[in-house]
Amino acid sequence: MLHLNLFIFGCGHHRAAWRHQASAAERLGDIGYYEELARVAERGKLDAIFFADGASVSHIEDGPRWYLEPLTMLAAISRATERIGLISTVSSTFYTPFHAARLVASLDHISGGRMGWNVVTSMFDAEARNHGYEAMPPHAWRYGRAEEFIDVVLRLWDSWADDALLLDRAQGIYGAADRIRPIHHHGDHFLVDGPLTVPRPPQGHPVLFQAGASAEGRDLAARRAEAIYAVAYDLPAAQSYYRDIKRRVREAGRTDPVPIMPGLVAYVGSTEAEARAKQRELDELLPQEASLRQLGMYVEQDCMGWEMDAPVPPLPPLSAFQGPKGRYATILRIIEAEQPTVRQLLGRLAAGGGHCTMVGTPEQIADQMEYWVHHEGADGFNLMPPTLPGGIEDFVDHVVPVLQQRGLFRKEYETDTLRGHLGLHRPPGR
Amino acid sequence: MLHLNLFIFGCGHHRAAWRHQASAAERLGDIGYYEELARVAERGKLDAIFFADGASVSHIEDGPRWYLEPLTMLAAISRATERIGLISTVSSTFYTPFHAARLVASLDHISGGRMGWNVVTSMFDAEARNHGYEAMPPHAWRYGRAEEFIDVVLRLWDSWADDALLLDRAQGIYGAADRIRPIHHHGDHFLVDGPLTVPRPPQGHPVLFQAGASAEGRDLAARRAEAIYAVAYDLPAAQSYYRDIKRRVREAGRTDPVPIMPGLVAYVGSTEAEARAKQRELDELLPQEASLRQLGMYVEQDCMGWEMDAPVPPLPPLSAFQGPKGRYATILRIIEAEQPTVRQLLGRLAAGGGHCTMVGTPEQIADQMEYWVHHEGADGFNLMPPTLPGGIEDFVDHVVPVLQQRGLFRKEYETDTLRGHLGLHRPPGR
Ligand SMILES: Cc1cc2nc3c(=O)[nH]c(=O)nc-3n(C[C@H](O)[C@H](O)[C@H](O)COP(=O)(O)O)c2cc1C
Ligand SMILES: Cc1cc2nc3c(=O)[nH]c(=O)nc-3n(C[C@H](O)[C@H](O)[C@H](O)COP(=O)(O)O)c2cc1C
Repeated sequence: MLHLNLFIFGCGHHRAAWRHQASAAERLGDIGYYEELARVAERGKLDAIFFADGASVSHIEDGPRWYLEPLTMLAAISRATERIGLISTVSSTFYTPFHAARLVASLDHISGGRMGWNVVTSMFDAEARNHGYEAMPPHAWRYGRAEEFIDVVLRLWDSWADDALLLDRAQGIYGAADRIRPIHHHGDHFLVDGPLTVPRPPQGHPVLFQAGASAEGRDLAARRAEAIYAVAYDLPAAQSYYRDIKRRVREAGRTDPVPIMPGLVAYVGSTEAEARAKQRELDELLPQEASLRQLGMYVEQDCMGWEMDAPVPPLPPLSAFQGPKGRYATILRIIEAEQPTVRQLLGRLAAGGGHCTMVGTPEQIADQMEYWVHHEGADGFNLMPPTLPGGIEDFVDHVVPVLQQRGLFRKEYETDTLRGHLGLHRPPGR
Repeated sequence: MLHLNLFIFGCGHHRAAWRHQASAAERLGDIGYYEELARVAERGKLDAIFFADGASVSHIEDGPRWYLEPLTMLAAISRATERIGLISTVSSTFYTPFHAARLVASLDHISGGRMGWNVVTSMFDAEARNHGYEAMPPHAWRYGRAEEFIDVVLRLWDSWADDALLLDRAQGIYGAADRIRPIHHHGDHFLVDGPLTVPRPPQGHPVLFQAGASAEGRDLAARRAEAIYAVAYDLPAAQSYYRDIKRRVREAGRTDPVPIMPGLVAYVGSTEAEARAKQRELDELLPQEASLRQLGMYVEQDCMGWEMDAPVPPLPPLSAFQGPKGRYATILRIIEAEQPTVRQLLGRLAAGGGHCTMVGTPEQIADQMEYWVHHEGADGFNLMPPTLPGGIEDFVDHVVPVLQQRGLFRKEYETDTLRGHLGLHRPPGR
């Protein structure tokens, strides 16, 4: 049984998707659009929808780099859906644990036990400067804060016993004061007395996702996360991350499943040629000059004269490259594996960046997903459709049925909670 | 034209309301309950529903002193309603302006321009201890922070021009970077660079409510609030507050209407006797011992031997009282005006405390409301029904039609925004 989330982002994860005639560029402030997407995902019996989050906006010329605040969106979406999980990113660097615990707990009540939170430590100085910092605090400090943050949030959720409310009209006793306890937290980062102002969430704890890439991030995920988002360009990269995380989870003494879900950008067609044509149609919408300028920054050379439909000119090896290595390594790998034209390379970078891309018929895509799941590459996927709603409609209507026929994916929801969909137990109250 | 908000709180504003057989005590974690209440209010063409907020919980034995987080509730409720305004309390002491601006702006988009925020500076040490403080910071500091907070929030809302999005597919230009500007705020309390991450709200600025009682609170309201909640036990108290605020508004150089809305606890019956019976039925649900113990704390003497259905024994005058004067003055006033029994006094204190109570037929209540509105007591009312949903159904089905017949209240919504309902103009972009 694999797990599938839909990562909802703007008009789709391909940067030029908004320029497509069929895009919903006009509707990004309209909650009805997101409700419709969530309903498509629910029709496909997906485990959850997921929103990323950030506190800065830039390069608005290029595309819809903004979004409504995800917690408020999910509250609305919860009323337009019935079973699907709802995951919001929450930054432990910018939120405080009391607000986070309360907002997410309330959403778990509102949605009847369908909430998850993806804890991130945030990245950009521009975000920090909206929250009282001159620049982004150091990585280690952020991870220290994240760990204490998670700790406090979990304790706040447990500050009400599951049976704290008595509702005894006859005796006039509404609740049991001794089943609602302060937490008296006084740590390096936070001072929080508790208790929380809302009863224990239906799931006990809304599900904790994490997506750490660094050693600190992986360790935090291994100790704390109940499900993990990954970035894996291909199966070897996925396997290396997967095995590393599973080892860290075991070393942390945990026996719960901790599903790992790499991002997946899928172009689905009734033939392979049709799928490739969809990809090409989007790639052709990329603005040539801006894309070449950006590529020039990634590879640290002038690309403005490069021929769009010719193969990418040879690039120096990773060892000789002085700039940020992560993205450069991805570029070298795409060139080695796919011998792309310049346009194709730009298209790959413009849709999911370092995430895995699959292009083909529903069977071909299902084959690859199955192979990853059976070879320690993934326990499921975080779907990042290049276009929305088209890309998720294609996936739900054509790939999901193939996965279902093969017994790899549920035909019906078997539970009503995100925790249930993911096969996670409900943590007992304290 | 008067304005009416519904202040939604638990099973109603009477402390014993949850014990009534018809109460929704079991449904306080069920968002459907609040959606139903909002729909009743919308059926009555009310201007808005309103949620208070706080960050601590206590005395859970006595009743439902908890609630879901209001911003997430309102996101859900916005999808179950179409025209009614949606007001959430937001504490400027515990939120940061970037989070507040973003959450409320998103809600204004989600609701299509129906959001308002009631800015409060918060009160209790127990709340402060959930947000990193050892105790509540001083009153003046909190009001200084509130003023800077409002300033930053408004500037963040204005950081996007109304026409910042171009959506030019053909040219590949999504937005106009020069119409989205940082705010570079660096003040005593906050460092916020901006811009906000969401486009300018449909209303320009979601409507700012305030409810200050102190001189600082009144001044802030006069300078900044677009509508004001008040506490007024009777018409003279309402007039004194009303005239004082209107004077301060004029002195602040403002010409906008700034409607003032005192709280109103109404018991509605088809006869006056029926209304009084409803009140008495609730008062009889008050737990005798706990209520007398609490009264003992308010008046600083032992009340445990007081006879419930006898008149309240004589109390020392205000000048001789050593404890907190506000509530004691209210108690003396209730005794003077109504010569209540002990049970009746407890009932008055248990439903809205110092807020105005009206008991009678729809016509009697409409008469009093009309009198207040025509004599500088109020521009509208913040309805605090003793029971929910019963108390608001009574009001909407019986009092609202009388107000409508007299031309005092709208028969249909004439606009789609809270700003429109309140007769406030839309602030132009900067
Ligand atoms: C699928 C996915 C979603 C992510 N969403 C966010 C997000 O919404 N906000 C954010 O600041 N970071 C997000 N990240 C980034 C990670 O949380 C993390 O910061 C990044 O992987 C770098 O890890 P490190 O800090 O351990 O080096 C996401 C990563 C992945 C793979
Ligand atoms: C109708 C109404 C609603 C209020 N809601 C809240 C609230 O939700 N949270 C809160 O902390 N204070 C709330 N208050 C309290 C006021 O904002 C304010 O703190 C109080 O009137 C004392 O004013 P002062 O601080 O100027 O002395 C409310 C007051 C009124 C009249």
